[in-house]
Amino acid sequence: MDRFQDSTPVADVHFNRMVIFGLGMIGGSVARSVRGRGMIGEIVAVDRCRENLDMAIKSGVIDSSEQDPVKAIEQADLVLLAAPVNAIIDLLGEIAPAVGDGLIITDVGSVKEKIVAAAGSALGRHFPYFVPGHPVAGKEKSGFAAASEELFLRHKVVLTPDPHTDSGALETVSAMWQAMGAEVQYMNCRDHDRILSITSHLPHVLAYAMMNYLTSADDPDQCYEMAAGGFYDFTRIASSDPVMWRDIVIMNRDRLLSDIRQYQDALDQIADMIARDSRQDIEACFAAARAARSLVTEKRRFPAK
Amino acid sequence: MDRFQDSTPVADVHFNRMVIFGLGMIGGSVARSVRGRGMIGEIVAVDRCRENLDMAIKSGVIDSSEQDPVKAIEQADLVLLAAPVNAIIDLLGEIAPAVGDGLIITDVGSVKEKIVAAAGSALGRHFPYFVPGHPVAGKEKSGFAAASEELFLRHKVVLTPDPHTDSGALETVSAMWQAMGAEVQYMNCRDHDRILSITSHLPHVLAYAMMNYLTSADDPDQCYEMAAGGFYDFTRIASSDPVMWRDIVIMNRDRLLSDIRQYQDALDQIADMIARDSRQDIEACFAAARAARSLVTEKRRFPAK
Repeated sequence: MDRFQDSTPVADVHFNRMVIFGLGMIGGSVARSVRGRGMIGEIVAVDRCRENLDMAIKSGVIDSSEQDPVKAIEQADLVLLAAPVNAIIDLLGEIAPAVGDGLIITDVGSVKEKIVAAAGSALGRHFPYFVPGHPVAGKEKSGFAAASEELFLRHKVVLTPDPHTDSGALETVSAMWQAMGAEVQYMNCRDHDRILSITSHLPHVLAYAMMNYLTSADDPDQCYEMAAGGFYDFTRIASSDPVMWRDIVIMNRDRLLSDIRQYQDALDQIADMIARDSRQDIEACFAAARAARSLVTEKRRFPAK
Repeated sequence: MDRFQDSTPVADVHFNRMVIFGLGMIGGSVARSVRGRGMIGEIVAVDRCRENLDMAIKSGVIDSSEQDPVKAIEQADLVLLAAPVNAIIDLLGEIAPAVGDGLIITDVGSVKEKIVAAAGSALGRHFPYFVPGHPVAGKEKSGFAAASEELFLRHKVVLTPDPHTDSGALETVSAMWQAMGAEVQYMNCRDHDRILSITSHLPHVLAYAMMNYLTSADDPDQCYEMAAGGFYDFTRIASSDPVMWRDIVIMNRDRLLSDIRQYQDALDQIADMIARDSRQDIEACFAAARAARSLVTEKRRFPAK
């Protein structure tokens, strides 16, 4: 932690007026983080949930709230779209008419290709100042109450710039995330959506399906009783926000459906080995999976939540 | 923790000579636990792995090792079968001829019905002194190096007695686990295997399948890079011992295969909702899963590993 805070180039990035659309766990964590690190003048938030706004104003994390998106972005030098992925697309359309030259807009959506396309058609000549982003730092929690100044510390933030993206805007957004302790990585938006479908969207669907299957069992109560640490960790992401994840799976539908189909094939192969009592195949299959999992552990440079 | 240690009826249970077959994480944790709590005279271990035995003897956790199962159980008053499930069945056959009156034998196998049946035919008139057990306290780690004196603290231990099981033997084994801080629960061995198939065996297969599918992706390395906390927890059990789990899934084959098929149906239903862009159905389905997951959290009375 210290190492990251020491190396944080706080001086390099400062905003006079940041407008955050969606003051949930991610938007709220950005607010806490830029304020805590002295990177900000004024923070204005737009959120449907009055409770989030009041909590944030009381705690001094934001300065004010605004209902009208167009009024909110007046005088802003950075706009952060931290709403659910569908709302991000709607917001791009709503603020577009009021976007002035050089206003940097960035987002935190878990699906990027469709958001980039929507930004292109909504923002027109201002599109180069839209920097698509995705902090890969989710939790099963949600809402401003779950926001933390350290949420992004040692976590990946993927930015998916377009050939048209302004390099200055990209550097500014990249510096902002690095100042919060995040590790910024650039990626093509199609690659992002393909990879996140496998590492995030598919596991969420599998965990939701596991909980749904358990509730359909003869005696779910006894299953709950017997759920040990392994089951607890395996299903943790099934506690994720249903609305947010509904929109994510729909927005990345085609890739996700193909991953679900291919995952089912992988599962069928194991079922077939078990049906054949094929000890060698099962052991080889489990051993390969374990070896792959050990690579995940090695690549993991931040502590388990 | 203190509460459990205070309430531990150490005085109630003591063994003169405990023989542990299989000094892995579970067998080793029992050894550390009974020794640490002063419940034991002598501990003898039988294990193929010389390294486990030497480590345990050096650290004073066990007193000696023995290669011959029959010689090992001479003078024993408790035999703990802590080997993989198939090895437990083999061991029952090997020690049966040497089992004397009143010798209590218990096991820790993750599948119970077939082990109970094997014990019945192997032990004959001594069968009433076999107490089938399963500490629901696994970890993805294995081997004596992963053994801990506190592994069973606040964890469930399921005992699956038979109508023929001697009540005194059952009480002794139950007292032993409670003295280690575990919460003992009695269950029919068929119910045990049916429920654990859902809460443990199925999730392990699903996690192994997830890792195997990821390795088949176009660029697994980028997937490893993007794997965040959710993926890390979801796949933790894919680091479990391949040989141990090979034997478990084969031994509980029929129930597990039926659970895999029904899980595939639950997954198909979600895929269908996504294909239909059915926002309402997806949200309802994810919300139901999240509600079920919250019950798992509520029932969980021990801290997350």
